[in-house]
Order: sequence, then structure tokens, then C-alpha cells
Amino acid sequence: MANSRLAFLAATLCLLVHVAFGKGYATAGLSEAQQCRLQRIRATQPDERIESEGGVTELWSEDDEQFQCAGVAAIRNVLRPNALFLPEFINAPRLVFIVQGRGLLGITYPGCAETYHSDQSSGSSSERGRRWQGEGQQGEGGSRDQHQKVHRIRRGDIIAIPEGALHWCHNDGNEELIAVSVVDLNNQGNQLDQRLRAFFLAGGEGGQGRRQGQQSRRRQTFDTEILAESFNVPIEIAQKLQQQSNRGIMINVREKMRVVAPDEDEEYDEEQEERMRRRRGPLTSQNGFEETFCTMKIKQNIDIRREADVFSRQAGRVNIVNMHKLPILRYMDMSAERGRLLPNALYTPHWSMTDHRIVYVTRGDAHVQIVGQNGQNVFDEQAGEGSMFVIPQFFTSILRAGNSGFEWISFKTSSQPMKSPLAGYTSVFRALPIQVITNSFQMSPRDAQELKYNREHQTFLLSPSRQSRSMS
Amino acid sequence: MANSRLAFLAATLCLLVHVAFGKGYATAGLSEAQQCRLQRIRATQPDERIESEGGVTELWSEDDEQFQCAGVAAIRNVLRPNALFLPEFINAPRLVFIVQGRGLLGITYPGCAETYHSDQSSGSSSERGRRWQGEGQQGEGGSRDQHQKVHRIRRGDIIAIPEGALHWCHNDGNEELIAVSVVDLNNQGNQLDQRLRAFFLAGGEGGQGRRQGQQSRRRQTFDTEILAESFNVPIEIAQKLQQQSNRGIMINVREKMRVVAPDEDEEYDEEQEERMRRRRGPLTSQNGFEETFCTMKIKQNIDIRREADVFSRQAGRVNIVNMHKLPILRYMDMSAERGRLLPNALYTPHWSMTDHRIVYVTRGDAHVQIVGQNGQNVFDEQAGEGSMFVIPQFFTSILRAGNSGFEWISFKTSSQPMKSPLAGYTSVFRALPIQVITNSFQMSPRDAQELKYNREHQTFLLSPSRQSRSMS
Amino acid sequence: MANSRLAFLAATLCLLVHVAFGKGYATAGLSEAQQCRLQRIRATQPDERIESEGGVTELWSEDDEQFQCAGVAAIRNVLRPNALFLPEFINAPRLVFIVQGRGLLGITYPGCAETYHSDQSSGSSSERGRRWQGEGQQGEGGSRDQHQKVHRIRRGDIIAIPEGALHWCHNDGNEELIAVSVVDLNNQGNQLDQRLRAFFLAGGEGGQGRRQGQQSRRRQTFDTEILAESFNVPIEIAQKLQQQSNRGIMINVREKMRVVAPDEDEEYDEEQEERMRRRRGPLTSQNGFEETFCTMKIKQNIDIRREADVFSRQAGRVNIVNMHKLPILRYMDMSAERGRLLPNALYTPHWSMTDHRIVYVTRGDAHVQIVGQNGQNVFDEQAGEGSMFVIPQFFTSILRAGNSGFEWISFKTSSQPMKSPLAGYTSVFRALPIQVITNSFQMSPRDAQELKYNREHQTFLLSPSRQSRSMS
Repeated sequence: MANSRLAFLAATLCLLVHVAFGKGYATAGLSEAQQCRLQRIRATQPDERIESEGGVTELWSEDDEQFQCAGVAAIRNVLRPNALFLPEFINAPRLVFIVQGRGLLGITYPGCAETYHSDQSSGSSSERGRRWQGEGQQGEGGSRDQHQKVHRIRRGDIIAIPEGALHWCHNDGNEELIAVSVVDLNNQGNQLDQRLRAFFLAGGEGGQGRRQGQQSRRRQTFDTEILAESFNVPIEIAQKLQQQSNRGIMINVREKMRVVAPDEDEEYDEEQEERMRRRRGPLTSQNGFEETFCTMKIKQNIDIRREADVFSRQAGRVNIVNMHKLPILRYMDMSAERGRLLPNALYTPHWSMTDHRIVYVTRGDAHVQIVGQNGQNVFDEQAGEGSMFVIPQFFTSILRAGNSGFEWISFKTSSQPMKSPLAGYTSVFRALPIQVITNSFQMSPRDAQELKYNREHQTFLLSPSRQSRSMS
Repeated sequence: MANSRLAFLAATLCLLVHVAFGKGYATAGLSEAQQCRLQRIRATQPDERIESEGGVTELWSEDDEQFQCAGVAAIRNVLRPNALFLPEFINAPRLVFIVQGRGLLGITYPGCAETYHSDQSSGSSSERGRRWQGEGQQGEGGSRDQHQKVHRIRRGDIIAIPEGALHWCHNDGNEELIAVSVVDLNNQGNQLDQRLRAFFLAGGEGGQGRRQGQQSRRRQTFDTEILAESFNVPIEIAQKLQQQSNRGIMINVREKMRVVAPDEDEEYDEEQEERMRRRRGPLTSQNGFEETFCTMKIKQNIDIRREADVFSRQAGRVNIVNMHKLPILRYMDMSAERGRLLPNALYTPHWSMTDHRIVYVTRGDAHVQIVGQNGQNVFDEQAGEGSMFVIPQFFTSILRAGNSGFEWISFKTSSQPMKSPLAGYTSVFRALPIQVITNSFQMSPRDAQELKYNREHQTFLLSPSRQSRSMS
Repeated sequence: MANSRLAFLAATLCLLVHVAFGKGYATAGLSEAQQCRLQRIRATQPDERIESEGGVTELWSEDDEQFQCAGVAAIRNVLRPNALFLPEFINAPRLVFIVQGRGLLGITYPGCAETYHSDQSSGSSSERGRRWQGEGQQGEGGSRDQHQKVHRIRRGDIIAIPEGALHWCHNDGNEELIAVSVVDLNNQGNQLDQRLRAFFLAGGEGGQGRRQGQQSRRRQTFDTEILAESFNVPIEIAQKLQQQSNRGIMINVREKMRVVAPDEDEEYDEEQEERMRRRRGPLTSQNGFEETFCTMKIKQNIDIRREADVFSRQAGRVNIVNMHKLPILRYMDMSAERGRLLPNALYTPHWSMTDHRIVYVTRGDAHVQIVGQNGQNVFDEQAGEGSMFVIPQFFTSILRAGNSGFEWISFKTSSQPMKSPLAGYTSVFRALPIQVITNSFQMSPRDAQELKYNREHQTFLLSPSRQSRSMS
């Protein structure tokens, strides 16, 4: 039951609809200035759940201090097979990770061409337009269409969605499509205040959560006549735009969707994209945001073993997607890290110099410790599958995988994040002169050298030491 | 009567004078964190009025939620013929639109050369300096002078004034010079808090609004002796710098001003500027702010019919000035849009992906609707000449011109704004696959195609449909 | 006595330790939104003092409105000969000025190579690693070591330390090493709230200030076993990492430190650096932050007479370090100005267009006046050695040196600051047409010309006029 939020969803009417995720008005009396007086961080599950016809939306609490300090909102969506996530845009940049499943994703940009056609002929735009109207009159469900690029998405993809860009998603696979996303509300792209706002073109109240005392089923958004005139359509069609359903924000599609999209030979597709991008490359850095938008790559698989950025047979692997791999992230100032730790392996103790990290556990568990203000331990827990926690900028964390290993995805609030490890090849101890260490910690040079070099052949990921390996 | 503000103006003394537009201290107990809990936006007239000898200043209320959310302040100045707006600078970037009249504008930058001379000879700086002193001793009102560039401004100009840059203005025309400006307080260029602050070199209390219980006529700013020494002038001159008048911030000039400025052959002037700028172009993007400042173009006429960016014989026209047309806007992160809608024509329903829009109506009226949080209609009014309203980022708006058409200027808080239209050639509906539309709105493919293509030959501006045309 | 802060210091435990400078929790109920309602600015001395074994830390009050408005924190450290400032990082960019003494400074960056070796051989990394471990086992205090670059620092240096970068300092000279630093908490690099946070790898409570009722001497940070495993060291070494001393954050070193550092032939060193940098130059502007970090210059002497940017035999000199001289400042968005005024000379009345200025007096004194809101004089004092004050952006200030001259260092919150002077060669008066001046101030053209040209051969620094010279 999540009545306070369903109240909002209940109010979502067609064209144009807004779902205020979060208890907006509850905190109305308080300052919204960002504060980071974190005494305790906890690995949390989403605390609210909204059912739709075609799936479920789960939200982490915006009131949680760790998310307020980081200036982010976190969402998990489960879209069932053959369901459609209705077209939506959000007031800040959003990074999505596909935990499970496959689907089709459309992101529309104003002014970009409708480059996906279902027929081969290459008539002029107006010809095509006319033909379309003709088709429409001839029969329903015509297989011809033209629209903007549609992206094939699948498990392991990181998807970058800029603020204000309308996007929709369809699950054309056989299993649930599960997506976890983090929205960077504190980003420069959001000029409203630091609160998540999702806007829907269509939609309606959730199936089970209808609220009592609810107002009229048709709430005034735009004047229907003006709307009809804007589209130059009969008033009946404009009324359909404003119709409210009780199916929520994910709906089941009536028949198999026949969206135009390239075949599954994805590798080729991506290579070709890459080549085109490279040809345009030098221009990219000269031009502004809007000029390169239409062809910009918006996704990157972060789960491909052979492309790991850090790899250790004993400890695990890490894949990174930053602005150098996915240039759109430069504008969104976010990035992501996907990791897998083998059983009992460690992630080096480190602090981030540049960003907050929002960690979502996809499998297994780990013992996590975070030390923050006043050398105070603010986190000392076992974080398990499906939970999420924030590692604030400058706070030092350490992770040890449990007996079945640990898999996670980290969302970061910087497009080129930088961490400072305490142990390993790139550690600050290696960088310090022996005598700085011996004096700082009142230890022998021999001890200092062990600190400097006992992990010198490992980076980021540390294999379990012999003891713990024998323990496990 | 605007006593609370006149109190400030009353306190404006010479060198250096500050006019705090806005009821600064009234809100002292409240947080200034920007908030956007807009329930209702209204098209408003300025709510305070300050009379000066040479004109009138009108201010929109800074307490109005719509301006607080957008982080801007709005001002309208009316400068009467032969009056001078005293040298002033402001704590944030300012975009000015000239609604009516013509005049001369000076913006001074430290370190830029005095490139405007009233005599042809080209002696060295020190020679000129000496000659000047000589002249000064010979006779008053000498016609020779040298100073920084002076700009001819006229109806339809957009003028970009960076934060902290001293500027003055003289109306040398025959009608009132009316200027509307928006100051982006939330801009990175302002490191003070989000409150408008105008600083004047000279000035004094307004003519009619003198406040009772007013303090001494000469308030301590700088020590007069130190001031005299700074300029190396007799103490009597320093005293004149600190003299307070009761003429306000716009004064009548004693005789016709003979400021050095190019002849009116403005087209040529601008072309030449353009050429020089283009030659320096590649450097511009490499260098910092200060290096290109001296020759940077600061104005652009936004009202030239033949330069319209969007043009429709049936609907009207739109001219845009962004950082690509006026490069200084890149640093100020603002831009503007000027539009004219024919009677009963529509501006496509759309939301802004990048910026707040502050709309000022220059002629006619329009029925405006804005939909925001929770699909709630926050604005549904007739907006008439002289009124102003904010369209917040991500909120969807729709405009239909009244029977006499609609003309407006929009100030935007981004240097490369991007909008996402619902109807027309670049609309999101065109970008969506038919089946996404049919499923989202539970309509037939035929209906969906009408939504996609019935306005496909129009962009931004939509002609009135047949019904409404027949109605009008 | 500074108990409230010693409470924090008392809590500083080893690995990883945080010293919250500032009364964090005292203001917990108030908004932290930056505000600039300055009624009065005062030149202040540090108001809290923390003793360590090897020196003293002094802090200016974070509650002082002038520092809150500027969004900065200010610190003065005195490090005694043969003492070590323990490795530390801070949550925002920091600019340090060395007032007195000399020393060695290390800044460690993750991923940068250990380029400083005490032996000449150039074996591979793994060879060296093995050799090192061997050495360690053979004898204590071995003279061989390898670590990241160590910088020689000396009186007059400006040092740029990015947020999150671990740094340490050793006084290997014969006099106290005195450093004044300003931390730009309002900087984009800090994603936590606007409060100074210093994190230490090692450390402990101060010597004299132990607080009553203090908790256990070993407070839980990380689990010792996990820590040991992270470094792959025996648990006894991990315990040493967490050991708390009562020596504070500056400690005396046991024997002369033999850190690897280049000989004192510094000029050569810097030239060579310069050349390398220039070769890499074009890349710098294309690449991101992290790619050029390792070799980036982090210091620049700002006190070299022959490199003065403004020089006047009659008035004094000014040296500037901005992003063009020290490119790392581009990323930190800070800069500095070092000045010396001769007795009774003046610093031109001016306002800053771009930044707040935090002024620290290193010698002599000056009569300072600052005029801000409503033309109100917010500062009118004699500022003497060791005091600090803020000149807020857009506020106009004027300085006259006392009878023994005036020396200062200004820290600025912009990497390319720009000021607008009222008097002198680059003044706004010179830039204004004569008639704008005569009309604004109701004075004769002759008076106006005196204002424009009587200081025309001087820039920034103004020699004392004849009267005051005769007075002195």
C-alpha cells in the first residue's frame, strides 16, 4: 500500500500528466538546501510500490538523508512481457541499468528526423505523409510507419536519458524487464527545485491503489478545443488524448507490437554507429549540445566480460562507462560502474574525489563499511540483493563479498569519476614516502613497506587473503 | 506609491550607490533555497513604480513564486526624450529588449581601449591625454572627447549586459525609450545570493516619492579625502561625486548630448563587426572570457522580418537570438525569442527541455494555458499587453492568439534552449511509432495518424483551423 | 581554549579520520542556503586555535557572515621545524599561500606513477617491488624508496590543492613554516554541503586540549580484520593504522626525514616542467581533468619582484596567479593576487565583476573602506598584519596603505578574475563620455576631465598625492 503516492498517480490524467514521485508537500515547511549531516546510512529497499496494469514501479524514499545529500532519486521498474511503459519525461538526467530482460526503447528529440521506416521506398516527406493518411483510411494496423530511432535494450545495458527527453519502453521479450535508474536532481540540467518530477503524455490511476475520496475522473489540463485545434484533429480525438484509464503507467498492448527496429545483428549495428560517430568526432567537441543529439549513442552494455576495465582471476572484474565511452554522459555529468566480486574478495578501501556513488546490489551480498564525519562509522552492514545505498563523496568505504560473491551497479554523479584507493597498485600508500608512513603511524619501515607493497599487484579488486579463503 | 522601495532609492547616494530592488529584509527569516511549488501562475503587471526626473522604473515583484522559481527579476524602464539613465551595474547577467524608441548605450569594460574619438588625429595616448587637459582648461563643453564604444540601440534590439559591467543609456530620440529586462539571478556569474542588486555611480532619491523620516542627505560612503586622493582631484570635485540629488536614476540632460558615436549607417557597421568577429572566430572558443570582451557584439535586432527563424504566412513568425547568433550569450547562458502570431493562430503545445521562459507581451493578447505538477493546470488566462508570466522548465504550455494577434518577447535561462513540441513537423507525436500512440491512448491507427500528420507541414506556429477561422 | 573544536580533534582516530573544522551542529536548525545580507564586515583574527605536537592550527569562524556569503573557510597553520603535517584531504579546492619558511609537500593522485626514486637503476615495476620487499626485510630505515613527486615549497608560493587529493607537508627548514589557506566550499568540486571537512589518514587528539568526559580512546572506524586483509598485512600492522596518538595533526619526526626530492636548483626544474607542459599543451584543452593531472604544475611563486604584473616605483607592485599562469586553477576556479603598497599609496577604488576576494594582511596595515548594499559603508577600519576580511563580489573597496606600507595576499573565487576600477588608466571614468559624467554629477567638463585623466598614467596602484606625501 502506498497511498500517499497513489494519490498522485490517481491524479495522472492524459496529456499532460505529471507523477510526483515523492512526498512533495510533506516537507513544505523545511528548507530544501542540500545537507549532508549523515549520522547513519542504511542499505534500503524501495519503500513505496505502485501497481500498473503492465508492471510495477518501486521508489526509494526521497526523504532518506543519504539520497537527499546525494541529490538523487532512485526507481526500480518491472515491466511485464508484452507491456508498454507509457511515454514519459523527467526533470533531470537519468541513468538506467537493465537488470533483467530485453525490450525496445524510444527516446524522441525535437527536430531529429524520423529515420526509421518500415518500407523501402524513399519518397519525399510530403509524399510519404500523404501515403500515410491514405493507408490509415484503408485499414487498421497498417504495417507501415516512420518514426525516430528505436533502440534495442537488453540485460546489462546502461542507458542515458537527458532531462526533458520523452521516452517509452516496450517489453517484447519473454521475461520481466527490470530496470533500476537513478535521477540526478542536483544536476545543472534541472532548473526546478531538487524534487523528482515525472511527466506522462498518457496514463491514469493505478489498478489496485485507487484512493478514496478521489476527485473527478477527468481533471482539467488543457482546453479540449484548443488541443484539438493544435493537432488539427476532430474534438473526439482530442478527448481521447485526455481520457483517463485505470491502467497506470505501464499497460498491456493489445496485439504484438510491430515497431520498426533493426534486426538483432546488434554488433554490426553498433560498429557502424561507432564509425559514423568517429567520422563526426572532431565536430562533436566544437558544437553545442543540440547539434549532435540526433545520432548520439545513448546506451552501452556494461556487462561484457571481454571489455572489463579491471579484471582479476582471483578477485573479479569491473566495467566502467564514463564520458569517454558514452559521450552523452559529458552533458549529463553522470557515469556508472558495474562490478562482480568473487566470494570473499574485497573492493579496495577508497574515497571518491569527484562524486557520490549510488550502489545497487544485483546479486549476492557484501559486508560494507563506510567511514565519514569525525572518523565515524556511518555504515556497517551486510548489503544484499535488491538493496541500495549511497557512498557520499569523500567518505571512505570498504567492501568484502560474502560467500556467494557480490555483484553491483554504481551510479555516479560525475562524468569522469576518480577514486583514491588506500590499498593496491594505485593506492595513496604506494604514493607516500616510507618515512611519511613510519612517522604518521609510528611504525617501522618494514611495516610501512608491507602496507605499500603487499597488494602492489592488484588494483581496485583484492583477492581474499589466505586466512579468509581457508575460512570460507 | 511604492514606499518600501523608495526607501532604498532615497538612500541612493553618489559614488557608490546601491538600489536594492526588492523587499530584501522582509523575507529575512525564510530560507532562500529556490523552490518551485507552483500552484498558480498569473500574468502580472509590475507591482512597484519609481519615478525619476527623466523617466519611470517599474519592477515585478520578486516575491512572486513564478519569478522565485525561475530565479529571475524583471524590470521595465521608461526613459523620456533627452534623458540619461545614470551609470549602473547589476549583480547578474541582464538581457534587455527595446520595446520602443531609440537611444545610445554605453557599456564599459575595464582594460578595453577608448576607441571612440571625436577628432580625426591619431596621436599617442599620452599626447591625447595632455591635449585633453589643455582643452578642458580652455573652455567648457568642448566637443572633443574619447571614450569606450557607444552603441546605437533601437526598437527590437536584444542587448546582453554581463554582470558587473557598468552601463548607461541616453534617449536621443523623439519618443519614450521603453526597455524590458530580465536579470538571471540564479546564474553562475552571481556569487551573491539570489536577490537583485543594482549599483549606481551617481544618483539620488526619486522626485515624488521622498520618504518621511528620512536620514541625512549625505550618507557616508567613502571618506571624501581618500576619494579625492584616489582621483588626484581637489576635494571639491570629490564632494560633487558624493552629492545627492533628488532626481532619481534617470535625469534630464542640460543640453543636447554630443556623444561620439558612428553615423546611422548601421547595417554597414554591423557587417564590418561581423567580418572582424569571424576572423577572430577560431580564437574565441580557445580563449577565456576577458580576451574577447572588448570587441564582443552585445546586441542583435530580434525584430527583423527577413531574418525570421520560423515563418508562416498563415500563422506568424519567430526570431531567435541564442549563443550562435550572439556569442556573448554563451557566457551569460541566456537567450531570447521574439514572436508574432496572427489572429487566432497557435503556438504549438510544448515543454522546454533546458530553461525557464519569461514571457512579456508587447502587443495584442493570447489565451495561455500551462500545465505543470500532477497534470494540474496552473495557468489559464488571457495575457494582455504589458503583462509578464513565467513558463517553468518542463511545464507544458499552449498559446492561442486573440482576434488582434499576439506579439511577445521571451527571455530564456539557457544560451541554447531546446523545446519539445507536441504538434507539428518536429513534434514528439511524429517521432513516436503508431502503435505506441494507439496503445497509449487506446485509439485507432487512423486517429494516431491524424495526430502525427495533420500538422506535419507546420513548425512551432500553427495556423488557425477552419472552424476557428470562420468563428473569428 | 577551543573546546568545541577540540571535541572534534579528540575524536580524530586513525584511518580514516575526520576533523570537522567549524561548529557543524550548532547551526543544525538553520538553512544553509548562502546569504549575503552583510551589514558589517570586520577584519578578523582566527578565533579558534588547536595545538598539535608539531605546530598550531588556527581557524577563522565559519559563522562569520562574510565567510558564509563568500562560501569559503580560512585556516592558518604553523608547522615547526622538523615536524610533519599528517596526510590529509579536504572536501573542496584549497589555495595555500606560504607566508614564511620552507618545506616539502606531497600531493598524491591515484593512478599517477611513483616517479621519484632514491636509486638510479630503472628496473621494471615488479622487479623494483620485489627488491623493495627484500630491502625491507634486510634492515630498517633503508634509504631507498619510490613514491610520487614531492614539491619543494617556500615563502611566497601559491599552492593549488584539488578537492579530495591527499597531501602532507614536512618542515625541513630552520624556521616555522606558516601557511594561510582558503577553501572554496561553494565550488562545484564539492558535492557535500557548504561546510569544511578535513579527513586525515592518521592522527589523534591535540596535546593540551583533551576534553573531559571523552569516549573510548579507540573508536570504531573500519573493522581491523577487514583492514588487515585489504592491505594483506598482519593484524598488528592494521592495529597500528588505527592507533590513536595524542599528538594532534602535526607531529615531530623522529629523525631527519630523507624524502626523495630534486636538488634545490629549482629554476631549472621549473623551466623543464614548463617545456614539457608546453609540448603537451594542445592536448590539455582537449582532454579531461584526469589525463593531465599527474604532471600538472601545482605551485607558482607569487612573490617574485621581477615577475610583477603591475609595478610602480611610486606605489608598489602586484603579482597575479590565475589560470593562465597555473592551469590547474581552471579546474579549481580560484586564483590569487599578491600585493605590496608603498607607504600611503592607494589601491584604486574598484569592484570585482567575477569573484569574492578574501584578503589576508601579511605585513603593515591599511585603511580599508568597503561600500555595499544601499551605498552603505560596511567596512571602515585599519586592517593590520595577520587579519583577514572579505570583499564581496560587486562591492566597491578602496585601500590606503599606512605609514609603513601594506602587504597582502588575496584569494579569489574565480580562475580569471576581473575588476572594474574607478580611477586610473583602466577606469570606468576614462571609459565614459565627458557629458555622461557632467550630467550624472552635475559638474563642469573641466571637473569631469580631471576625474578622467588625473590618474591616467597609473593602473590599480596609485601613488600618494602630494598632500598626503607631505603629511606622512
